[in-house]
Amino acid sequence: MVKQTEITLPPFGRGYHLITGLIKQKLPPLPDKGMVNLFIKHTSAALTLNENADPAVLQDMEYIMNSVVPEKDNNYIHTAEGADDMPAHAKTSMTGVSVTIPVTGGQLNLGTWQGIYLCEFRNRGGSRKIVATVYG
Amino acid sequence: MVKQTEITLPPFGRGYHLITGLIKQKLPPLPDKGMVNLFIKHTSAALTLNENADPAVLQDMEYIMNSVVPEKDNNYIHTAEGADDMPAHAKTSMTGVSVTIPVTGGQLNLGTWQGIYLCEFRNRGGSRKIVATVYG
Amino acid sequence: MVKQTEITLPPFGRGYHLITGLIKQKLPPLPDKGMVNLFIKHTSAALTLNENADPAVLQDMEYIMNSVVPEKDNNYIHTAEGADDMPAHAKTSMTGVSVTIPVTGGQLNLGTWQGIYLCEFRNRGGSRKIVATVYG
Repeated sequence: MVKQTEITLPPFGRGYHLITGLIKQKLPPLPDKGMVNLFIKHTSAALTLNENADPAVLQDMEYIMNSVVPEKDNNYIHTAEGADDMPAHAKTSMTGVSVTIPVTGGQLNLGTWQGIYLCEFRNRGGSRKIVATVYG
Repeated sequence: MVKQTEITLPPFGRGYHLITGLIKQKLPPLPDKGMVNLFIKHTSAALTLNENADPAVLQDMEYIMNSVVPEKDNNYIHTAEGADDMPAHAKTSMTGVSVTIPVTGGQLNLGTWQGIYLCEFRNRGGSRKIVATVYG
Repeated sequence: MVKQTEITLPPFGRGYHLITGLIKQKLPPLPDKGMVNLFIKHTSAALTLNENADPAVLQDMEYIMNSVVPEKDNNYIHTAEGADDMPAHAKTSMTGVSVTIPVTGGQLNLGTWQGIYLCEFRNRGGSRKIVATVYG
């Protein structure tokens, strides 16, 4: 059995954001056993799972990914949409646009420290769309 | 309900290649609601979703991943298969070998700018195999 | 039809470890056609698929990811849990916490050279938990 819903996020600033609570509110009732796939329909923002306790992790993730894919590089060809755009595409492929989370007992079966992150790689990415597909 | 098919890609040169059209032609009929998992059966080529409009993005992705995992590093131990091989393994793990795409109304529910990329990390990777699994 | 089981791994040292055999022993009977999602419930260890033949690949993966996300960086803010912790979070997001593998003929449909890796990014990560969800 499949349920599906589209979730529209409010605009977030550049950086990493914990959206577990926001996503949970928007999901359809979850099955006893199954999984949820969250898929962001964009090429310069990503979804990942990471530490849900210390906000410093969100800041360090932004810093690290900026170090791995720097904005200032004269070799980039795709530059028409701004210095943040091509690095955003690369960070998106390195992070991934979907997460698949097991569902157990009608709940997301996340680890104690796992939260759902929106990774907004553009300076002004605007509102983002996520498709949630539930199996079970 | 599960449908599954194996897709054999023609050989592609090293770099990033948009294969959305090619994949769509090979998929079985899609359900009204569900998802497709595309899984590449290799350790030196990957699948990702990224910008489908400007071919410069494909070139910049190749450049960026070569910067992140350079070929010239005397610390690599696994070198018997050529200078491109170990970096190809690392890029594959960083990118991922599968993408899961929601299906809505019998179509891949991709964002406007999202396309399916084959990431060929070997100089001569030859033909690659993808398993497509459809749920719904 | 969904089957689900939780797998507790023994503690592994820091680095990359091939766990295909260990996982196969713990999976419930697999369907004729479907998929398996393996999900690690942690934020400083990851799962990936890569080369199953040469142990040097495991060592080079550890070396490469240490180069991409170095431990010595005074800009990190999240440092209270040790120098290995924040890099472990970043490597986890870059690698991913789940892999989805097609099932065909009651077997994991992996490529000839593909194996399942546990990526232990902490110096002393301890025992790790994986949720295996089987569809088909």
